[in-house]
Amino acid sequence: MPDFLDNGRVYYNPVDYAMHHIGGTWKTPILWRLSKRIMRYSELKKHLPHISHKMLTSQLRELEELGFVSRTVYPVVPPKVEYALTEKGMRAIPVIDTIRQYGMDLMREAGIDPETVFRKTEP
Amino acid sequence: MPDFLDNGRVYYNPVDYAMHHIGGTWKTPILWRLSKRIMRYSELKKHLPHISHKMLTSQLRELEELGFVSRTVYPVVPPKVEYALTEKGMRAIPVIDTIRQYGMDLMREAGIDPETVFRKTEP
Repeated sequence: MPDFLDNGRVYYNPVDYAMHHIGGTWKTPILWRLSKRIMRYSELKKHLPHISHKMLTSQLRELEELGFVSRTVYPVVPPKVEYALTEKGMRAIPVIDTIRQYGMDLMREAGIDPETVFRKTEP
Repeated sequence: MPDFLDNGRVYYNPVDYAMHHIGGTWKTPILWRLSKRIMRYSELKKHLPHISHKMLTSQLRELEELGFVSRTVYPVVPPKVEYALTEKGMRAIPVIDTIRQYGMDLMREAGIDPETVFRKTEP
C-alpha cells in the first residue's frame, strides 16, 4: 500500500494508522483501563504507576481530541473530573483484546506465564 | 498488569510484548507481504519502496531470530535467497489483519478511502 497523509502526518499503511490512534506505550493501557469502568484522573494514575503526570495529561488530551475518550468535569469542590470511553473508544477494545490475547500466547511460548505476572502486583 | 522482563528488555503489558514482535514501521509490512507468498530479497525490497537495504536486512534478521521468518539459500550463481513465513509467522497474520481492518475503518471515518489509496500505486 502506498503512503498517505492525514493531518500533515505520513502513514505507510492501515496498521500504522491504527496504531497511531490506539497504540504506543500509554494509549493502549489507558483505553484498556477505561473499558472496565469510568475513572477519575487520580484512579487512572494509580493504575498506571510508571506514567508521569505530564504524560498522562497529554495522552488523555490526545485521546479526547481523537474522539476515543470523553472528559466530564463536575462543578464541585475539589473539582471532580471523570474519563470514559466514547462509542469510538469502545470500538477499539476488541482490537486491543485480540493483540493482548496474542501477546499472552507469545509470552507463554517464551516461557513467561501471564497469570504469574498478573498476580505479582495486581489488586 | 505489572511490567516484566524478557531478554533484558522491560515490557509493560502483553500488547507491548506483541507489538515488539510484529509491530513497528517495517515488521508488519514484511510479515504481511510474506503471508501472500514466498519472496526473494529483491522482490521484498521492490514491494517496500521506502525501506533502506540496511533496514530491510536487519528487520529480516530480527524476524528470523524471533522465529517468524525462515531464510533459504539456494546454492546457485548468483545466490538465490528466499524468505517465507514460519508457522509462528503465520499465526501473526490474523492479528495483523484485525488491526489492518480496524485501521481501514478509522481511515474511512476520517474521510480517507483506503481503496483510492490502494489504487494509486499498487500494481
